[in-house]
Amino acid sequence: MKIIVDQKELNRAIGIVQKAVTSKTTLPILNGILLEAKDNTLKLTGTDLELGIESYINCEVIEEGSIVITSKIFGDIIKKLPDLKVELEVDLDNQVHINCGTSKFNLIGQPAEEYPQLPQVNEDVSIKIPKDLLKNMIRQTVFAAAQDEVKPILTGALLEINKNEVTLVALDGYRLALKNVSVECEHDVKVVIPSKTLNEVSRIIDDDDSDVNIMFTSSHVLFNCGDTVIISRLLEGEFINYKDIIRDEYNSRVKVKTKDIQQSIERASLLAREGKNNLVKFNISDDKLVINSNSEIGNVHEEIPIELEGNDIKIAFNSKYMLDALKVIDSEEINMDFVSNVKPCIIRPVEDKSYTYLVLPVRLIDN
Amino acid sequence: MKIIVDQKELNRAIGIVQKAVTSKTTLPILNGILLEAKDNTLKLTGTDLELGIESYINCEVIEEGSIVITSKIFGDIIKKLPDLKVELEVDLDNQVHINCGTSKFNLIGQPAEEYPQLPQVNEDVSIKIPKDLLKNMIRQTVFAAAQDEVKPILTGALLEINKNEVTLVALDGYRLALKNVSVECEHDVKVVIPSKTLNEVSRIIDDDDSDVNIMFTSSHVLFNCGDTVIISRLLEGEFINYKDIIRDEYNSRVKVKTKDIQQSIERASLLAREGKNNLVKFNISDDKLVINSNSEIGNVHEEIPIELEGNDIKIAFNSKYMLDALKVIDSEEINMDFVSNVKPCIIRPVEDKSYTYLVLPVRLIDN
Repeated sequence: MKIIVDQKELNRAIGIVQKAVTSKTTLPILNGILLEAKDNTLKLTGTDLELGIESYINCEVIEEGSIVITSKIFGDIIKKLPDLKVELEVDLDNQVHINCGTSKFNLIGQPAEEYPQLPQVNEDVSIKIPKDLLKNMIRQTVFAAAQDEVKPILTGALLEINKNEVTLVALDGYRLALKNVSVECEHDVKVVIPSKTLNEVSRIIDDDDSDVNIMFTSSHVLFNCGDTVIISRLLEGEFINYKDIIRDEYNSRVKVKTKDIQQSIERASLLAREGKNNLVKFNISDDKLVINSNSEIGNVHEEIPIELEGNDIKIAFNSKYMLDALKVIDSEEINMDFVSNVKPCIIRPVEDKSYTYLVLPVRLIDN
Repeated sequence: MKIIVDQKELNRAIGIVQKAVTSKTTLPILNGILLEAKDNTLKLTGTDLELGIESYINCEVIEEGSIVITSKIFGDIIKKLPDLKVELEVDLDNQVHINCGTSKFNLIGQPAEEYPQLPQVNEDVSIKIPKDLLKNMIRQTVFAAAQDEVKPILTGALLEINKNEVTLVALDGYRLALKNVSVECEHDVKVVIPSKTLNEVSRIIDDDDSDVNIMFTSSHVLFNCGDTVIISRLLEGEFINYKDIIRDEYNSRVKVKTKDIQQSIERASLLAREGKNNLVKFNISDDKLVINSNSEIGNVHEEIPIELEGNDIKIAFNSKYMLDALKVIDSEEINMDFVSNVKPCIIRPVEDKSYTYLVLPVRLIDN
């Protein structure tokens, strides 16, 4: 293999595929990046067997071929090279010669044949969705997925396509985040995608309105973003029937400015985190929401103007679960719907029906 | 005590004095910041008994007084408050009431009487030096001070004032960095200031050409930067006689572009760090400097154009010690003077006699 490639392009592509490379592997070849040169294209591949990323860049192919190079040192070297053309040449001993300007590196490579093949995902079942829309769906939901492995299925997010509507849902037993958008799709789909995959997809895809093409098999999902392709295993098992959890009735509806309540909870949580459960107490009556929090070192009292429809209510929350949602809501105002102080609170942007966040209260003895 | 103070001003001042507050103390009062309100001024003090920082801000004093408040939570609260006036009121139980907008915090304070007094440093022996000059002196030298406590005196930098010349020197047994500048001073001074102090001074003082006033006693140094005063213990003991180490003769003098050699060593060190000692080998002959480094995973060869005066030489270095200096030299070209491959290399900017860096080579068996 012998190619000439632009340093900046190569550096960018390595940065992308490295996101799938883990150093915590028992299979040493997975510490490497697979390079394949053919038809004036260099294909780079990284995988940890759960998640695989391929990136394609233009290059001058003098001799076709392929090689695996240790990801970290290869990435570090290319990053430090000057912004010039880089020549990569592999000899018969799998030695990789990297020449750029007055720098010459020789690295020991591994044969491409030892690198695992990524699964084939065909185009039978697929949807197209604008990149910025997908990024936002991920941003507004995936944080609510479970962090621990007690129920492995909850470490992923449910992607459901039904009657041209795409819904992404994540939940961890304490809160649930749901976002839906309209897309054109002939098929119904119901898959659970690992959070890690969705976070990497969100990091890798550009922030424009061009489309990403998502394809499904029974075991894998593939995100095709043009120069970059991300392939991931799906999680196996039945997701919780989230529709049963979200109810529309309420006894108290609070309309409040998103930033007002976010900033007040952030301040109250400074004391809340000193105590247990990050506990913040809401006292809602008439036209104001009072937030209190206590700890050994002091206490805090915050007042926020609101519009209240229905009953007064006292209720307590883990401030983290509230803040996680408030941070990702871009709308100026939200509605918070309460049934009682032991039932979930449902948060929805006033002007945006596509997002729903549900959070359980903390039950207090003195409530 | 009762005062009204600007949130931004207070936040900035807390950030400054917090640099002297450590959580690793057996004296709980030192986790706090001392506030003293008098004459329309709020004075904030933080100290770990080695280093003390005082910051002064304007405020409206409704009632004079003083209190100690836990540094971390106080700083976090003030940072999160809106950009409005903050009212601080201390009641008879040492409770601190913080009111700002619709936020009310109550914190438990500690009596100011329990807070240690910072030492008095008078103006008898003092110099004035422009802030940007002092910052640059610190930046170019202090990194070379010893990191470990084997020889405690070497964890500081020697500040020597002699015949209107100020010299700052740091060394750790492997390398030495020296910077001198001219200032007006009637006294001769020779003190060793802890690196930590100098680094904090550098972080705290603004990057302008106004003066900082430095005062000395036999045990302490004080940096007066106007709104902020930094007081530090000096290190006790005799500093190494650095003048004996720096020699002016050489058998080989290499003139090279600073960025060229820095970037080449940075690349070579990617492989060097995989091996032992961060070893990079220099092969200097005619009009080029070749840098080589080897490790189990590969090798590197870098060529840099130079002007050589004197003999060819092969010599090896710890790349870290070379890079530390090259990163802080702003001049376009440097001279590197060599005597032999077991004697120190001395680096000086070509156009700037005020800076000297000396680094020991690594002795190789095959040299």
